[in-house]
Amino acid sequence: MVAALDRLGALGLALPDVVPPLASYQPAVRAGDVVWTSGQLPMSGGSLVAAGTVGTGEGHVSPEDAAGLARTCALNALAAVASQLRDDETLDDVRVVKVVGFVASDPAFTGQPAVVNGASELLGEVLGDAGRHARSAVGVAVLPLGAPVEVELQALVVPRAAAPAS
Amino acid sequence: MVAALDRLGALGLALPDVVPPLASYQPAVRAGDVVWTSGQLPMSGGSLVAAGTVGTGEGHVSPEDAAGLARTCALNALAAVASQLRDDETLDDVRVVKVVGFVASDPAFTGQPAVVNGASELLGEVLGDAGRHARSAVGVAVLPLGAPVEVELQALVVPRAAAPAS
Amino acid sequence: MVAALDRLGALGLALPDVVPPLASYQPAVRAGDVVWTSGQLPMSGGSLVAAGTVGTGEGHVSPEDAAGLARTCALNALAAVASQLRDDETLDDVRVVKVVGFVASDPAFTGQPAVVNGASELLGEVLGDAGRHARSAVGVAVLPLGAPVEVELQALVVPRAAAPAS
Repeated sequence: MVAALDRLGALGLALPDVVPPLASYQPAVRAGDVVWTSGQLPMSGGSLVAAGTVGTGEGHVSPEDAAGLARTCALNALAAVASQLRDDETLDDVRVVKVVGFVASDPAFTGQPAVVNGASELLGEVLGDAGRHARSAVGVAVLPLGAPVEVELQALVVPRAAAPAS
Repeated sequence: MVAALDRLGALGLALPDVVPPLASYQPAVRAGDVVWTSGQLPMSGGSLVAAGTVGTGEGHVSPEDAAGLARTCALNALAAVASQLRDDETLDDVRVVKVVGFVASDPAFTGQPAVVNGASELLGEVLGDAGRHARSAVGVAVLPLGAPVEVELQALVVPRAAAPAS
Repeated sequence: MVAALDRLGALGLALPDVVPPLASYQPAVRAGDVVWTSGQLPMSGGSLVAAGTVGTGEGHVSPEDAAGLARTCALNALAAVASQLRDDETLDDVRVVKVVGFVASDPAFTGQPAVVNGASELLGEVLGDAGRHARSAVGVAVLPLGAPVEVELQALVVPRAAAPAS
């Protein structure tokens, strides 16, 4: 089995630093085996990669670009989850359960699922079957900092060592 | 005690097929005893029952019609939950915990609670006390495929056989 | 250690009555040790404190006022959580895990994090470290009754008596 971090590397990616919260909250909180992340914006290297609403017309972030941004959100979410792991746990022990993707949308744009897929596919590519999740995709008026996409997730930490070796 | 499936039947309803995901996610995921559904749209027989934003003015989906669509969403959510049950479990072992209802809303429309009630009431009619839940209702700009309503829920699987027989 | 109710009192606040649901749902539901609240509006004494969308221009609820309303939402959420405690449990046994804040927003307004901070800060002031949470802040088109803010949270009940006395 290829480790999640190796899969990330094969994608030309690395786990980024956890994005510092914009306000009085934590990037993620762990309650027992469940990790709840904060809503993650498409931040990279400390700044928002793009701003605007998603749509197909002039002046909007394109759905394709937005899917790429959702991918960045998911990467930041993985970093937030990883920050809640104990020393003897790795991303290979993480199973994603639920993803909610908020897409700042032109009111005429109804392709939110394809946008949030950017996040879902990154999770599948990195975590394999453990990245399979339930999901809601919603089009909203506006997001913090003018971000086109925001992604939050809930994950379970299930040490694989605890699973039968079959 | 009348079984949930019998109550459904008495309402002239049956558990529909699980609505296939629009993209790279699962209709529902189970983590231990908790089932998280994906956001469910008012799909029936493979297509969206209605599209548009909800409001009281001309050209909008009426709040009454939207409540009926929320009911369809809840039925689809029950089907998604049922897909996560083991052979020795039934809908009678399911307890709904939380519902979130997103209503694609004309900005002047503030009656989201009555719309999402369509979902809440269906859950109560089918599951009785086990259908009682916490809930958030929110008005959003636009939903996938142009759906007027989207409903997600979290449920607990609590085998009644495990409960005291009192 | 100062008790949560004493901290509330020092802030000139008291735990309000639980806001009755607007429709067919519960103010909060407890599943094992997890409490899920319904979305809480800025209700006080039975009525909405203010209505409108949040923004910096004329005719909008100001971000500062909206932060105060988010604080009221959080207070109502604490009351909803408290309603789920057993006789031998107090707010001192409650640990907030996740907060979602929906802000009815002028499309040009991107300061949702500062608004939802009103809720986050109240939770920290009352619960201390146990009030630290993951959070999503989202700008939506419209909220029930025309409320400017809606806040839901998930909390864990962890009896402190069960914790090591160190």
